[in-house]
Amino acid sequence: MQQDLDSLMNENKIDAILITGPAFYNPTMVYMTGGGHVTHADLIKKVGEPAILFHGAMERDEAAKSGLKTISFSNYPVQELFKEANNEPLQAYALRYSRMLKDAGVTKGKIALYGVDEVGEKFAIFNALKQYLPDVEIVGFSPDPIFMQAMMTKDNKEIERIRAMGVITTGVVARVADFLTSQQVTDNHLVNQDGSLVTIGQVKSKINLWLAEAGVENPEGTIFAIGRDSGVPHSTGTNTDLLELGKTIVFDIFPCETGGGYYYDFTRTWSLGYATEEAQKLYDQVKEVYQKVEAEFKLDAPFIDCHIKTCELFEAMGHPTVLSTPETEVGLVHSLGHGVGLHIHESPFSRAIGGKSDVLAAGSVFTSEPGLYYPERGLGVRIENTYWMRPDGKAEILVDYPYDFVLKMKS
Amino acid sequence: MQQDLDSLMNENKIDAILITGPAFYNPTMVYMTGGGHVTHADLIKKVGEPAILFHGAMERDEAAKSGLKTISFSNYPVQELFKEANNEPLQAYALRYSRMLKDAGVTKGKIALYGVDEVGEKFAIFNALKQYLPDVEIVGFSPDPIFMQAMMTKDNKEIERIRAMGVITTGVVARVADFLTSQQVTDNHLVNQDGSLVTIGQVKSKINLWLAEAGVENPEGTIFAIGRDSGVPHSTGTNTDLLELGKTIVFDIFPCETGGGYYYDFTRTWSLGYATEEAQKLYDQVKEVYQKVEAEFKLDAPFIDCHIKTCELFEAMGHPTVLSTPETEVGLVHSLGHGVGLHIHESPFSRAIGGKSDVLAAGSVFTSEPGLYYPERGLGVRIENTYWMRPDGKAEILVDYPYDFVLKMKS
Repeated sequence: MQQDLDSLMNENKIDAILITGPAFYNPTMVYMTGGGHVTHADLIKKVGEPAILFHGAMERDEAAKSGLKTISFSNYPVQELFKEANNEPLQAYALRYSRMLKDAGVTKGKIALYGVDEVGEKFAIFNALKQYLPDVEIVGFSPDPIFMQAMMTKDNKEIERIRAMGVITTGVVARVADFLTSQQVTDNHLVNQDGSLVTIGQVKSKINLWLAEAGVENPEGTIFAIGRDSGVPHSTGTNTDLLELGKTIVFDIFPCETGGGYYYDFTRTWSLGYATEEAQKLYDQVKEVYQKVEAEFKLDAPFIDCHIKTCELFEAMGHPTVLSTPETEVGLVHSLGHGVGLHIHESPFSRAIGGKSDVLAAGSVFTSEPGLYYPERGLGVRIENTYWMRPDGKAEILVDYPYDFVLKMKS
Repeated sequence: MQQDLDSLMNENKIDAILITGPAFYNPTMVYMTGGGHVTHADLIKKVGEPAILFHGAMERDEAAKSGLKTISFSNYPVQELFKEANNEPLQAYALRYSRMLKDAGVTKGKIALYGVDEVGEKFAIFNALKQYLPDVEIVGFSPDPIFMQAMMTKDNKEIERIRAMGVITTGVVARVADFLTSQQVTDNHLVNQDGSLVTIGQVKSKINLWLAEAGVENPEGTIFAIGRDSGVPHSTGTNTDLLELGKTIVFDIFPCETGGGYYYDFTRTWSLGYATEEAQKLYDQVKEVYQKVEAEFKLDAPFIDCHIKTCELFEAMGHPTVLSTPETEVGLVHSLGHGVGLHIHESPFSRAIGGKSDVLAAGSVFTSEPGLYYPERGLGVRIENTYWMRPDGKAEILVDYPYDFVLKMKS
């Protein structure tokens, strides 16, 4: 949680954090500011002290909404900076950062750099900073041991924002199910009222529209894949594909709050009208494993253990998995789940990263998404919900939704 | 244009370009790849040679759509890199970049770094690169003399993409005008069919919905501001404000292709039902200046001269402008215009940057957006179109739209 930042900075021997870039589509900045339309900002937080948000003069009001201490860039007049820096822009901006850091009480030590922005320009500016603040060292991490750790555990306000996204997400899923089952069927295919065939592209347009109506965004896209595509987890679906009865449809939807805020992640697999025997069997197996693995979601359990358990269960059913066959392209071909927050993929991860395995800490929000994939047989199944590890040790699905595999056509 | 990259690299003594980050919401990468759902990529272009797109193994098909030479990251096995780098991730990634650069034939010289991505992580990785490629120097620019220059002049394919965005943009504007004028009026305010008052927030929701329906995005938001807000150019409008007859409404809309592609930029000012005498006079003055300045858009004319002309015309009418009063908050408070492309603001700029003034080169796309602002009088007027400087020297408005100031209510 945000309150852990100071101890995480101390653990990692970091004296200050500097985040650069806008307050949207920029997870660390959104985390500190709460979002808002600040297009050009920097945030400096000295260890043990509150953060300061530096902003353009015109964005004073938006910056103030963050509730943080704010300082306008107008305190560092550009013309003076350029004059002092002999009209070298990179030097002038480095000089401005040196003044801002001084005003935040940071004149020496290690500063961890964050933010999504133009990499090359900031690379040059922060390397030029040395000449103005020789006792300051700018560092960056991969993986990040500070924000990724703090963000991993959510407070109740964050949980409610993610849950609200879940309500919107499952609402759109229900609307898609209703749309599909309301269509006419000709020759085993869905047909629109005007006689044209329903396509994946058409369904995706509706999903985008309904998400927009709900005031949310899907910058990472949506997976709506049928048949062979449903068996290829990285396929998002082919727009010209038709909606055919009795084929598996993997519908994986992961929108976020407008401006790059909190995400939700959700998957159902459907078969319209009826299911083939082999698809039904595959679905039942995924659902069985899904339910068995849920029992493993215990407070502070290593998430990787839940992944291993998933693989073992599938392998006992005769399916290849990444556990025994890391390069497999059939069976279970991906990891069990991942954290969800201001990133669609964040800690905890169910795979080890840099030899380190995340645990299901209190306040963590994560997906469970076992699946089985057989593209050559035109089959793919995945079931996914987003969980919250409550402080009382119960893993709660943030928003419930039915598990129907076969969606009966209404007419 | 893209074909100018080599000469711009030579002019700036750059031996290679390296762009990092996804192929969406990342202007330089979108410029080189054409966009597409490549979530994690690097592009290296040695001067005089074609670009190479490095991509994840799973995104092979999406990467191939760029038409560029592609190399999969699977050619640089992560486990081997980590082993060689003693399990230091930053070193391992730096080692991978050194291999990728070698495979692109780049082992020495200046490499210009680009891309929108995590600044801190890339800062650390590219500083670590030195130890693997000591003869390579990574540089960044501000302002950027390579892509910003190449992107400033568009080829016909780019023009048609921007024009298509203009058709969508003005289509949404027409829909908003139709919606507003179709409402009932009670006590000088617009009223919905259910008797509730029409709000700015409601209009903005409809704008978002109609943009989504058209399959485009507005990541930078939309300005729909009435009364006092219309007089504050950086105000995007207040959601709870009501739609009142006889007040100036500034509607500035600047959506882009999905995934952070080409933008369009467009503004009209409206007064619903009727206009006050003072608003009409202000509108007529802005329109007069708008039309007079259009005559100044000549091939290779310094854009700043058009801005100065705009200020002089307004000052002759008795309005303060930024020309004589740089800090003015009334009259003309901003510059005449800016280039539009993969950035909503790019070259040419009508203000001088780093002492340098852009010219209206053949192929440039730019806005003309004179305005007058008197927030204390509840008044703001701006008229904006996006122009293309054609190779034959004519500045063409990409999409025409009527200039009606007063929108008559239908009932």
